Amino acid sequence: MRNLTLLTDLYQLTMMNAYLETDKADTMANFDIFFRYKEHLDFAQCAGLEQVIEYINNLHFDEDDIDYLKSLNLFGDRFFDAIKNFKFTGSIRAIKEGEIIFPGEPILSVCAPLFQAQLVETALLNIINHQTLIATKAFKICREAQAGVMEFGLRRAQGPDAGIYGARAAIIGGCSSTSNVLTSKMYGIACAGTHAHSWVMSFDSELEAFRAYVKIYPKNGLLLVDTYDTLKSGLPNAIKVFDEMKAAGLKPVGIRLDSGDLAYLSKKARKILDDAGHNDCIICASGDIDEYILSSLHQQGAKIDVYGIGTKLITSSEVPALGGVYKMSCLQENGVWIPKMKFSDTVEKITIPGIKTTYRIYDNENKALADIICLVDEEFDITKPLTIFHPQQTWKKTILNNYTMRNLMVDIFVDGKQAYTSPKLMDIAQYAKEKSEDFYTEYLRLVNPHTFKVDLSQKLYDLKNDLTINNENKKK
Amino acid sequence: MRNLTLLTDLYQLTMMNAYLETDKADTMANFDIFFRYKEHLDFAQCAGLEQVIEYINNLHFDEDDIDYLKSLNLFGDRFFDAIKNFKFTGSIRAIKEGEIIFPGEPILSVCAPLFQAQLVETALLNIINHQTLIATKAFKICREAQAGVMEFGLRRAQGPDAGIYGARAAIIGGCSSTSNVLTSKMYGIACAGTHAHSWVMSFDSELEAFRAYVKIYPKNGLLLVDTYDTLKSGLPNAIKVFDEMKAAGLKPVGIRLDSGDLAYLSKKARKILDDAGHNDCIICASGDIDEYILSSLHQQGAKIDVYGIGTKLITSSEVPALGGVYKMSCLQENGVWIPKMKFSDTVEKITIPGIKTTYRIYDNENKALADIICLVDEEFDITKPLTIFHPQQTWKKTILNNYTMRNLMVDIFVDGKQAYTSPKLMDIAQYAKEKSEDFYTEYLRLVNPHTFKVDLSQKLYDLKNDLTINNENKKK
Repeated sequence: MRNLTLLTDLYQLTMMNAYLETDKADTMANFDIFFRYKEHLDFAQCAGLEQVIEYINNLHFDEDDIDYLKSLNLFGDRFFDAIKNFKFTGSIRAIKEGEIIFPGEPILSVCAPLFQAQLVETALLNIINHQTLIATKAFKICREAQAGVMEFGLRRAQGPDAGIYGARAAIIGGCSSTSNVLTSKMYGIACAGTHAHSWVMSFDSELEAFRAYVKIYPKNGLLLVDTYDTLKSGLPNAIKVFDEMKAAGLKPVGIRLDSGDLAYLSKKARKILDDAGHNDCIICASGDIDEYILSSLHQQGAKIDVYGIGTKLITSSEVPALGGVYKMSCLQENGVWIPKMKFSDTVEKITIPGIKTTYRIYDNENKALADIICLVDEEFDITKPLTIFHPQQTWKKTILNNYTMRNLMVDIFVDGKQAYTSPKLMDIAQYAKEKSEDFYTEYLRLVNPHTFKVDLSQKLYDLKNDLTINNENKKK
Repeated sequence: MRNLTLLTDLYQLTMMNAYLETDKADTMANFDIFFRYKEHLDFAQCAGLEQVIEYINNLHFDEDDIDYLKSLNLFGDRFFDAIKNFKFTGSIRAIKEGEIIFPGEPILSVCAPLFQAQLVETALLNIINHQTLIATKAFKICREAQAGVMEFGLRRAQGPDAGIYGARAAIIGGCSSTSNVLTSKMYGIACAGTHAHSWVMSFDSELEAFRAYVKIYPKNGLLLVDTYDTLKSGLPNAIKVFDEMKAAGLKPVGIRLDSGDLAYLSKKARKILDDAGHNDCIICASGDIDEYILSSLHQQGAKIDVYGIGTKLITSSEVPALGGVYKMSCLQENGVWIPKMKFSDTVEKITIPGIKTTYRIYDNENKALADIICLVDEEFDITKPLTIFHPQQTWKKTILNNYTMRNLMVDIFVDGKQAYTSPKLMDIAQYAKEKSEDFYTEYLRLVNPHTFKVDLSQKLYDLKNDLTINNENKKK
């Protein structure tokens, strides 16, 4: 396993050194990872926890890491003593991979000595930000596809890991397979593909290329028909080969469209295939597709049975960063936890204090109604009515009588010991599918999704208010 | 080194198997990587070649790779014999890292047996697409910054590699340093950073936090002033500390703004610092900055000396994929090279045939005037006038008399042997800077850059025309 211990920002290390110098290194602190609302990120689907666990378990400074850090002349002897046998001894709670989450909710919380909590910030954000982003994009794409989606993005991913872990996240988001062989091997998931234009070009004629391909792969012979001209060359040649297959007692698979107008070509191709007696041949489409194009293809009655989706999925092209942050929310002083809050000149950057968790509230049809962010030790009595507020228009209240609640966070590490084992990837994907069905579809739709209520508990709301007033008073 | 041999699409492997079955595996083929024009990608800056070389040199199938592939039941015995001792024996030519390139120009060409050329497609595209994209974004950002730019994006990068190699590409594009410790260690480049909000929050007061920080890092004490309120709290506290430093004979460094209106706050802060006698304190700014915001900050007379730029640089947020492709352009049949061309129903997807290179033409001031894509063995006589055409409006001609030409491609591998050694990263960055100065600034400006002429040589133009007419005739 690669040593990613130095996959951090320099300031984490200089702060760690400075915590030692100011005798704060062992001070316990709580940090939360959460994302802020921005367009196209009304909600997200958690992913990346398995890689977080691997990263934490593998944290250690190699000798050449230490040599390199010494060469920077920024750190004292205490620092090198402390990193020599570095081990993470803190606790981590997190929301499981596959859960739907909303802006502001703690996705993952680290409770650890400042020295340790600071080191892991950058890598945890990198992992969670990336995989959660791609799972979310894949989730949206798969919902709109209403058909199987093969993840085809490796060549356009932002480096090898973006391809490897992007494909992993895409499976969580709902893709049925990936073209990425390494990811398939690593996570035991389905691997898929057709053939390239180069296959066709390596033969004297398209017909010859198709014939040779289905001879070798009769069961996987999805023929790419746009190398020369989809309707005038590719489709007629494919049909010739399909006819020959049928005559030989074989079942032809179908064709793949990779350019041109997919709505027009798929409808034309469907009719031509049907007229030629190949009603059971499928049509696969690829080429710069995203959830909006899928929505439009459906409106136009496109006849596509399966999609191969690359660039826009693997980069989350419209919003290529989740923008998750890692913020201190509590600090222990003389054995007492002191809630902490960052204010900032940008209102959206004000944080929520305290050690927190999120409960999801369900109605009597077991559909999610709202989330409540609260202090981790708060208790709720579900036999009593619960009043929830609209997050912005707080005068809009709903009183619930018949409801259940579920704590979204689970223990991942307790005092440095791993307390959670990540399920297999296909089990996570199944969990993700089930949990997304907890929502009324209006909350997860593509355009203007209905705002899902994310409330603060009364206790947390009061705490945040008190600290805000306190900060304003200090400035006067 | 990680084994990335399976970092490929399944269809590469199934085609490789099918090339064996059709006795085409040893057929020599030439493939080109190039990118197509899209908005924000009028030009690009090459990057990623060093990682391509590492990848090629490290290609091998491990035993567990072979076991995994056997489990797929897609490949024959000849395939497993062939991959057992797989070695790349082909040739690769490429444009050096740091060069400015334009849509359609071959960035990298692979000339190898089909079996090998197909395997490497996906990883080569992944590496070149990613790093070239990020270098290009960094190049644009650094040009607009007119000040030092620190790369701060690791936490928002699309996975570890996107952070590691994105930072590498950012240095090629012109960034002066990165916050990414691992990249700094790997490539011997400057590492930079300030401190986080958590540092301030871990103290009872901001003043105390600042005081402690500059005590430990008097020479690197760039103070982050927006934890509670930039102008009412952060700046006055920073000035108090700077005064104390001066009184103690130390030279204060400066402040960092990370939220709020950077134009307004930087001008305000500059004046307040100057009035307090701290004219030599610098102002660093960060927070969702890109080349357009930089341009606007300059117009507004913002007073910023150095930038920390993260999310939008490391993801190339506006256009998060270069979209480079790998297309067959020539195939050897009975010892003769046959030019190949893909047509497609989408005009932009039609390829250029032949084994090619690109020459850059310079005027008598040594400024780049145009590029000519030509066949690799064409010769030009620079003592004779050269007629170049406008790429789209071909009736617009220019006749050059006093010019020089430079072949942009160099040999990287010749018959499997490495023929090029990648320079050190800072030397590549220096080369990139020099080569970008070959261009009149109008060609590289942010908005509506002047179209740089990319011409085809007469021979190549004729070849492309002949094949196109031939393809149209075939369809009739």
